Amino acid sequence: MSIVVLHGSTRKGGNTETLTSVAMEGLDRTDIFLRDKKILPIHDQRHDEGGFDPVDDDYDGIISEVLQHDILVFTTPVYWYGASGILKNFIDRWSQSLRDSRYDFKAAMASKKAYVIVVGGDNPRIKALPLIQQLKYTFDFMGMPLEGYLVGQARRPGDITSDFRALTEAQWLNRVLKKESESGS
Amino acid sequence: MSIVVLHGSTRKGGNTETLTSVAMEGLDRTDIFLRDKKILPIHDQRHDEGGFDPVDDDYDGIISEVLQHDILVFTTPVYWYGASGILKNFIDRWSQSLRDSRYDFKAAMASKKAYVIVVGGDNPRIKALPLIQQLKYTFDFMGMPLEGYLVGQARRPGDITSDFRALTEAQWLNRVLKKESESGS
Amino acid sequence: MSIVVLHGSTRKGGNTETLTSVAMEGLDRTDIFLRDKKILPIHDQRHDEGGFDPVDDDYDGIISEVLQHDILVFTTPVYWYGASGILKNFIDRWSQSLRDSRYDFKAAMASKKAYVIVVGGDNPRIKALPLIQQLKYTFDFMGMPLEGYLVGQARRPGDITSDFRALTEAQWLNRVLKKESESGS
Amino acid sequence: MSIVVLHGSTRKGGNTETLTSVAMEGLDRTDIFLRDKKILPIHDQRHDEGGFDPVDDDYDGIISEVLQHDILVFTTPVYWYGASGILKNFIDRWSQSLRDSRYDFKAAMASKKAYVIVVGGDNPRIKALPLIQQLKYTFDFMGMPLEGYLVGQARRPGDITSDFRALTEAQWLNRVLKKESESGS
Repeated sequence: MSIVVLHGSTRKGGNTETLTSVAMEGLDRTDIFLRDKKILPIHDQRHDEGGFDPVDDDYDGIISEVLQHDILVFTTPVYWYGASGILKNFIDRWSQSLRDSRYDFKAAMASKKAYVIVVGGDNPRIKALPLIQQLKYTFDFMGMPLEGYLVGQARRPGDITSDFRALTEAQWLNRVLKKESESGS
Repeated sequence: MSIVVLHGSTRKGGNTETLTSVAMEGLDRTDIFLRDKKILPIHDQRHDEGGFDPVDDDYDGIISEVLQHDILVFTTPVYWYGASGILKNFIDRWSQSLRDSRYDFKAAMASKKAYVIVVGGDNPRIKALPLIQQLKYTFDFMGMPLEGYLVGQARRPGDITSDFRALTEAQWLNRVLKKESESGS
Repeated sequence: MSIVVLHGSTRKGGNTETLTSVAMEGLDRTDIFLRDKKILPIHDQRHDEGGFDPVDDDYDGIISEVLQHDILVFTTPVYWYGASGILKNFIDRWSQSLRDSRYDFKAAMASKKAYVIVVGGDNPRIKALPLIQQLKYTFDFMGMPLEGYLVGQARRPGDITSDFRALTEAQWLNRVLKKESESGS
Repeated sequence: MSIVVLHGSTRKGGNTETLTSVAMEGLDRTDIFLRDKKILPIHDQRHDEGGFDPVDDDYDGIISEVLQHDILVFTTPVYWYGASGILKNFIDRWSQSLRDSRYDFKAAMASKKAYVIVVGGDNPRIKALPLIQQLKYTFDFMGMPLEGYLVGQARRPGDITSDFRALTEAQWLNRVLKKESESGS
């Protein structure tokens, strides 16, 4: 089982990355930092006669990479009680992939497993729950199980290192992923 | 009381716009179509020594316009159980406005009222509830009351005209806004 | 299609009953007032060797009645952001019915349709959403579609008559149920 | 700081009790098993001229005990995506205590801290989130902070001992409560 991490942070080395690094310690994986990519917001052309126009950005390349892995780890700081705009833009574009004749996107995603890591500053163990539910509905639509999620609390740079509970949970996730990645794909 | 409508649709004349036009019928207001604007995703520099770098896009102009109104109507199709990426990008940038020394963004927003109109295709009266909760938390943070929200159901172009319940609610919102806009600002 | 209304109010003639009466105006139906019944809280014996002991109360009689109808309308005031205890006790006992060899409770319920009417005093259009989600999960488990729900706002006796929006929605529900009840069972 | 645990399970020695015993290991506390008490559902008389009639059951005694403690731990199996009926009945009765002239119930509760432990069988880390939100709203109303919550997964008797994640979190809660209980009241 191979792992790809989709990093939704816009700040390098931030709390979300720190918590993610604990969860990923010692694991082979591919890291994709969405902030280093160009991903345009979707332009909904699902109902246009000719379908979606090709978009000149990095989205297709990221999807090609994602499709080669079995486990998808989505990470994002909690921005305004939701995913970061760059992660949301990435997910919004799935509507385009669903119409892409080069692959059966839904079937491909349904064979993968999802994990989520979020870190927020304003009582995230309560106020990030709508975000978790949103991602759950999203993965349900694709038929991809949400196997687990972590919620960390941090406001200022470095704060996450004081969230003992989140760190413990990241170690739990690390063990789970190690077991997963050792099993054949 | 003057009204500004922030349109989060990426498709012109779509179901969300149709439902919104029922709610706005006969009302003086300013329409801002986010799809016609350039709004970059936020780059979180809240913790940088120099704060946020200036961004060369349409965000500041939109905020200037928004700040001149008393009632904010946020509209968005439900994309993957959340706001459209272009609306999310717009809201994410509020973090930047909160650090903007030209105005007291939070105090200014706290004097306004918010309404929300969302239209989704996949059981939105249940599956858009996390989106409503997210926006509620967002407006709570700003101290801006969420006075009401509409949820419409539509999948294909034009479907919203068959959602009798949503249309009735849009008429209710229209009456409320007419009363509001007649009261002095 | 025949209708049974399960009334979860503990106060006779309260706001929830008033809103429900608007939704039910002119409709043949069976009204069950849970406050007039004796329904004990469940004692979880799912894992006891002998299963559930018989319980000497009105629960079985209510279920017999419910099973004879096609449309179930659950009504409850919002008590502490959830269903009233008497309605919750009734639903909890479904675990017992699921083990009852006299019928296939799940299959029977899966052939019915559910509607929900709730009235709360503390911003119910936001704070009753978890209750709606809970009931949705409950009906999903049974395979029974939640066809629609109403949320009314009222604090003091009679307040519901000022919730114009809820009344309009109750009229919408009335039309829907009239159409339903005219179609053959 | 002294601790009272309100046990909402109806099955003795069940998964919720097992998880709770890990969280409470070595801690002085008062255990109240609601299943051993008689607590009638509320009869809403908030708007009756004479207020609430006295109720002949164990509720008042439990409240007297609860009011003597600083930390309240609410535990419940997830029954139909909510609290057990016996715990819900107990909380519903708070409406009566709020009108009780013998004490200022709200002020008294506002000086306490709440923790929650829930165990469910059907994907509780997602489907128990509405229950958590409900309890959060409830405690918010009282001005009592929800300091933390645990969600365990278990279906059959003993299953909780395989939920390594929940056990780890229970140990975390144990450390937190030990620190709390050592600090002066």
